[in-house]
Amino acid sequence: MAEQQFASDNYAGICPEAFEAMQAANAGHAPAYGADSWTQAAADGFRRLFETDCEVFFVFNGTAANSLALASLCQSYHSVICADSAHVETDECGAPEFFSNGSKLLTAATEDGKLTPDLVRAIAGKRSDIHFPKPRAVTLTQATETGRVYTPEEIAAISAVCRAAGLRLHMDGARFANACASLDAAPAELTWKAGVDVLCFGGTKNGMAVGEAVIFFDRRLAEDFDYRCKQAGQLASKMRYLSAPWVGMLESGAWLGNARHANACARRLVQGIADVPAVSLAAPVEANGVFLNLPAAVQEALRARGWQFYGFIGGASRFMFAWDSDPARVDALARDIRLCAMPAAA
Amino acid sequence: MAEQQFASDNYAGICPEAFEAMQAANAGHAPAYGADSWTQAAADGFRRLFETDCEVFFVFNGTAANSLALASLCQSYHSVICADSAHVETDECGAPEFFSNGSKLLTAATEDGKLTPDLVRAIAGKRSDIHFPKPRAVTLTQATETGRVYTPEEIAAISAVCRAAGLRLHMDGARFANACASLDAAPAELTWKAGVDVLCFGGTKNGMAVGEAVIFFDRRLAEDFDYRCKQAGQLASKMRYLSAPWVGMLESGAWLGNARHANACARRLVQGIADVPAVSLAAPVEANGVFLNLPAAVQEALRARGWQFYGFIGGASRFMFAWDSDPARVDALARDIRLCAMPAAA
Amino acid sequence: MAEQQFASDNYAGICPEAFEAMQAANAGHAPAYGADSWTQAAADGFRRLFETDCEVFFVFNGTAANSLALASLCQSYHSVICADSAHVETDECGAPEFFSNGSKLLTAATEDGKLTPDLVRAIAGKRSDIHFPKPRAVTLTQATETGRVYTPEEIAAISAVCRAAGLRLHMDGARFANACASLDAAPAELTWKAGVDVLCFGGTKNGMAVGEAVIFFDRRLAEDFDYRCKQAGQLASKMRYLSAPWVGMLESGAWLGNARHANACARRLVQGIADVPAVSLAAPVEANGVFLNLPAAVQEALRARGWQFYGFIGGASRFMFAWDSDPARVDALARDIRLCAMPAAA
Amino acid sequence: MAEQQFASDNYAGICPEAFEAMQAANAGHAPAYGADSWTQAAADGFRRLFETDCEVFFVFNGTAANSLALASLCQSYHSVICADSAHVETDECGAPEFFSNGSKLLTAATEDGKLTPDLVRAIAGKRSDIHFPKPRAVTLTQATETGRVYTPEEIAAISAVCRAAGLRLHMDGARFANACASLDAAPAELTWKAGVDVLCFGGTKNGMAVGEAVIFFDRRLAEDFDYRCKQAGQLASKMRYLSAPWVGMLESGAWLGNARHANACARRLVQGIADVPAVSLAAPVEANGVFLNLPAAVQEALRARGWQFYGFIGGASRFMFAWDSDPARVDALARDIRLCAMPAAA
Repeated sequence: MAEQQFASDNYAGICPEAFEAMQAANAGHAPAYGADSWTQAAADGFRRLFETDCEVFFVFNGTAANSLALASLCQSYHSVICADSAHVETDECGAPEFFSNGSKLLTAATEDGKLTPDLVRAIAGKRSDIHFPKPRAVTLTQATETGRVYTPEEIAAISAVCRAAGLRLHMDGARFANACASLDAAPAELTWKAGVDVLCFGGTKNGMAVGEAVIFFDRRLAEDFDYRCKQAGQLASKMRYLSAPWVGMLESGAWLGNARHANACARRLVQGIADVPAVSLAAPVEANGVFLNLPAAVQEALRARGWQFYGFIGGASRFMFAWDSDPARVDALARDIRLCAMPAAA
Repeated sequence: MAEQQFASDNYAGICPEAFEAMQAANAGHAPAYGADSWTQAAADGFRRLFETDCEVFFVFNGTAANSLALASLCQSYHSVICADSAHVETDECGAPEFFSNGSKLLTAATEDGKLTPDLVRAIAGKRSDIHFPKPRAVTLTQATETGRVYTPEEIAAISAVCRAAGLRLHMDGARFANACASLDAAPAELTWKAGVDVLCFGGTKNGMAVGEAVIFFDRRLAEDFDYRCKQAGQLASKMRYLSAPWVGMLESGAWLGNARHANACARRLVQGIADVPAVSLAAPVEANGVFLNLPAAVQEALRARGWQFYGFIGGASRFMFAWDSDPARVDALARDIRLCAMPAAA
Repeated sequence: MAEQQFASDNYAGICPEAFEAMQAANAGHAPAYGADSWTQAAADGFRRLFETDCEVFFVFNGTAANSLALASLCQSYHSVICADSAHVETDECGAPEFFSNGSKLLTAATEDGKLTPDLVRAIAGKRSDIHFPKPRAVTLTQATETGRVYTPEEIAAISAVCRAAGLRLHMDGARFANACASLDAAPAELTWKAGVDVLCFGGTKNGMAVGEAVIFFDRRLAEDFDYRCKQAGQLASKMRYLSAPWVGMLESGAWLGNARHANACARRLVQGIADVPAVSLAAPVEANGVFLNLPAAVQEALRARGWQFYGFIGGASRFMFAWDSDPARVDALARDIRLCAMPAAA
Repeated sequence: MAEQQFASDNYAGICPEAFEAMQAANAGHAPAYGADSWTQAAADGFRRLFETDCEVFFVFNGTAANSLALASLCQSYHSVICADSAHVETDECGAPEFFSNGSKLLTAATEDGKLTPDLVRAIAGKRSDIHFPKPRAVTLTQATETGRVYTPEEIAAISAVCRAAGLRLHMDGARFANACASLDAAPAELTWKAGVDVLCFGGTKNGMAVGEAVIFFDRRLAEDFDYRCKQAGQLASKMRYLSAPWVGMLESGAWLGNARHANACARRLVQGIADVPAVSLAAPVEANGVFLNLPAAVQEALRARGWQFYGFIGGASRFMFAWDSDPARVDALARDIRLCAMPAAA
C-alpha cells in the first residue's frame, strides 16, 4: 500500500462504522428498492439528526444528488444561481443541465466561493424578460470548494433574499459534515432553520463507498421524487447497501467524528507551516482543505519528493484531508513544505 | 432473519467472492474515478472473459447501464426495437426516453418475450417517413424477463437483420450470467461473435451490491462514453468499490457458479412439482425464473402459507432464484405448491 | 396548377380571410414577440369565442403546440394516456417525449381512435409502482385521426375519470373547428365546460399558413408557459404574422365556415358513393375525412386515374377535405370510385 | 400607424419581394412538408448563392435554427464556445441547452463580441478531464450583436484552430446578409471557403415574416437532420410559405439590397451625429446597428421626445435599422440626438 496522499478526500476508503453496518446488512434476504428495514432506519436517523420530519432519499453520488434536487426545483427554462467555483458548475460535466433538460447555471464571480445576499440579488434581478432563463433556485456549497463555510446567519440572510425573489434554496453538502464540525453547529441550524429547502448530504467524502442523501425539508417539493430517481437510474435495487452505512455513521456519530478528524488534520498542516515565510494561505482554513500559495519551485520540489496535489483556482495548491488521514503523514507533509520552502534553514 | 422468499432475485445479498474483494479493496487510499488498480484489473478480467479487446465501463445499476448504452446508439429522433415485455419498456420508468432525450421504444408483441428476425424486420420496415422516429437499435434481453434465453444462432440471425437495416444491437444482460450457464456457452459466443455491439452485464442480480458493466465490442461506439457516464451521474468517485467485486467474481468464477446455482434451483422447483396436475409452466424454464399457471385458489393458499410472489405477464406467478437460494427452501415451496394444488392428496 | 387531390388537408393554401388579415398586418412597424395589437386582438378574440378568460399563446405548428402543452402538464417521469392512433403517438416523431424529456405515451387500443372512460381508467389504474411512469395527463384528439368526434357528454365523462385519478385533460384540436361544425356545438361546450384543461386549436388545417393557438382554461397551468415557448424555439419575433390571421378567421367566422365546407365535402363524397356495393365506410364520417374500404383493384384503378390518397390504419383509404375543396372535384372522385368499383355498370 | 422606431430590426414587416412570393405561392394546393416546388426552388437558390451543393433546411425562427444546428454538432456532454454577448447565450432562454439536452455554452469574455483564434484556443484547451463538458463546436455570430463583422480571414483563422482542436464551426447568421453587404463579400467567402460547417441564415431580420435557413456545407453533418427538425416542432406542414419568400428574396436580390439599405441607414445616423461632442460610438458601425455612448440626460431627453431604444451591453444605447427604415426618420433621430446633446447649440 502506497503512502497516503492528500490530493483528494475521495482517495480514502470506507470507514469502519460504515463498513461494519454494510457487513451487518449483508445477512440473508431483504426487500428491494428501499422497502427494507435498514433504509427505514437510515431515514429515521436523518429525521432525528435534523430534528424534523423531512423526506429522505438515497442516491448513488453527489453529481446525481445535486442534479436531481435542482431539477426538482426548476423547469428547463429556469435558472440556478451559484458561485463560479461551485462543483455543479465546474466539475459535474453539465449534469445539472442534463437532468433538468436545460436549466442554466448563472454564476456569480466570488472571491472565496461564497455567495452573498447582494450577489444573489444582483443576479436574480438582472433580467426579467422571457429571453433569458428565469431564476428559480440558489445553490450553496457547504463547505465550499475552497474550504469555506457559511454560518447560519449567512445562510439565513441569503434565504431571505430567496424568499423575496421567489427562489428556492438548495445546499450542496458534499462536505456538509465538515461544515457542521467546523461551526460546531447542529445540522438543523445550518439547514431548514436557516431556510434551506433541500440538502444533499454527502456520504462518500464522509467515509462511505457510495451514496448521498437527498433531504427535503419542505416535503411538498419531494412530490414524485422517487419516480424522478428511478427514471434517472438512481434507485438502487439492493438499497440496503446504500442506506445501512448511513445507519452506522449516524448511530455511532462517525459522520461527525470523521469530519472533525479531517478538519483537524487541515488545521494541523496549517499550524505546522505557520511560520514558513514563503508560504501563505490562499483561503482561510475552515473545513478539511488547505489551499496554499506555494512558489513554483516549492511545488516542484514537493512533487519531486513524491507529494501529489492539485493546482486549483487562482493557482493555489490544494491539500485535502479525509476521515483517515494520518497525523504523522500530515506532519511529514508540513516538514517537507518547510524544507522545500526554506532550503537554507533545513 | 426471515425465511427466504423467491419473489425477486434482488432480495439476495452480496456473495462472499464479491464481498471479500470489496473488503480487500478497502485498504488505504486509491486514486478516484477509475484510475485505481482494481478497476484496471476488472476491465482486464472482462477482456479475458470475452476474449476480445473490448471497452468496459462500470455504472451503478441496470437501468442506467441500459439507458446510457442505448443513448450512445441513438439520437433523440431515433427509436429502439424491443420486446413488449422488455425491462426497458416495462420497468425503468421511462429511463431510456429520459437518457436519450426522447428516443421511442417500439415494442414487438411476443409470446415469450423473445424478438425474432421477422419481428425486427417487420417493425424496422413499417415506417420510413420523418413523421416517425427512425429505428436505429435493437435491444435483446438475455435471459428474458420470462426466463427464456437466446441461442447464439438466434442472436446471429437477428444481428443479420440489424446489419441489413442499419440497426445496432444492444443486449440487456441483467441476467447474462444465467444465460451463459443455461446454454453452457462462452460469453463471446453470446455476444460479439453473434453480432452484439454492446452488452450490459448485470452484477447486482449475479451477487453484487451495485454495479453493472457496460461492454462495447465495437470500440468506436464507446467514444466519449466516459463523459456520458459522468454527466449522467454514473461515475463513481470511489470506483474501486464497483470494480473490485467484479475482480472477485471473475477470478473465482463465481459469476458463473452463482448463475448455475440459481438456474439449478429453478429446475429443482420444476422437478418438484412436475406431476402436479393443476399446475403448469407458463414458460419453459431456461434460466433462474419459474413462471407457473396457478389456479387462483392455489395462489391464495400459498400466500396464506406465507409465500410471496408476483403476478406477472398473462397472470403467471413468478418465482425467482438467486445465487444463495436455499435448496431446502425450494423443496419446501414445491411441497407447499403440491399441497395447495392437491389438497385431497395431502 | 394541378388538379385538386384529397390526400391531405395540409395541401390547401391560405384562405382569403387569413391572407387579408396578414396583408393588413403588414403595414409598417410593430412591437415584436407578441406585444403588438394584432396579438392582443387575437387573444381577445379567443376569449370571446370561448366565453371565458383563458390564456392564449401562439406557436408555429401542431406538433409543437401539443408537445409544449403536454410538457406543461407533466414531468419527465410522468405519462400521457392517448389513443393508439393519436397523432402525438403516430406522426410527431417522438416530439412529446422530446419536449417533456421523456414522458411516455401510454396507448389505448381503440377501434375508432376514441378514448373512453373505461379505457382511461384501465390504463391509469394498471400500474402504480415507481418502476413505471405515473399517468398524469390524458389527450383527446378532436376530431380524431379517423374523422370521429367526441360529444360534450363523452368529453365530460372522460374528464370525470381524469379528476378522480389526478389526471389533466388535453385536447389536440388540429381539427377542432371541424368538430365544432360537426356537432354544431359552441367551443366552450367542447372544452372547458366539459373539463378540458388545455386545448391546441389548429389553424393550419383550418386555412392558415402556420400557427396554432394553445389555450389554457386553467390559467395556473399556464405559469411561465411563455418561457417554455421561447426556450423551445416557438416564440415568433414578428408575432403579428401568426396572430393577425386568427383575427381574420375569428372576426369573419371563417374558422367555422371553412370547417363546415370541408365537412360538407366529406359528406358529399359519401353520398355520391352510398350505393356502390363494393365500397364501404371504414369509419362513420363525422368531420372532414372519409375512410373507405376499397378493394385493392379499386385502389389501383383509382391511382391509375391519377387520384392520390393514403392507405391508413387497418388498410382503409383516406380522403381529406379542406376549406377550399372543390365540390365538382369531389363529384369527380365519387364518379371515379363508382367507375372503378363497378366497371360493368359503367 | 405610429412613426418608425429603431429599437429593433424585428419591428419591420415583410418586404415586397417576400410578400409577393408568398402571395404567388398561395395558389391552389401543394404537397406538404417540403415536397413542393417552391421549397425545391428555394434550396436550389441557396445552392447557387453559395456556389456549392449544400444541404438546406427551413425552420421557423433563429432560436430554433441555432439550437438545432448546434445540437447536430454536439452530444449533451459536449460544450460550445461562444462570445459572452452571443445571442445563444444571452437571448435564447437556454434553448441551446434544451435542444441538446444539456450542452454547455462556454463563454469568452470579449470586448467587441468577436471571438479570436486565441480566445477559442484558450477555452478549448482549458480543461481536458471528464468532469467538464468536452468542447466540440464554436459558434460565431455574423454580424455580431454589437454590429461587428468577421472578415473571411478572421473566420479562416478561427476555423484553423477548430480543425486542430476537433471543433466544428457554426455561424449564427441572423444578420448574415448585413455582413455580406458590409464586407461586399460573396456568401461562399464568408462561410464554407473560410471553414464554416453550418450556417443559420436569417430571414426574419432580412425582411421575411418567419423562417430561417439552416445550411450544411458538410453534408454528412446533415444526416437525419430532417427527423431532428420534425421532432423539435420545426417542420412546417405548409412549407411553401416558409420557402417561397426565400425564392423571392434570392431571385430578386432583395436579400442583399435590404441589408445594404439597413447598413446604409446605420452609417447615415453616424454621419449625422459625427460632430456632436458629447456622443461617441460604443462600437465601430459595420452592419445595421449603431451603439452610442449617450449621457444619461441625453437618453432621457430622447425618450421624452418619443424615441425608443434599448440600453445594451456596457450601457450603450442601441439603434437598429431594417430593410424599410426611412432615411428621413433617421435624419430626424440624428437631429434630435444633436438637440438633446447640445441644447445650447440648438
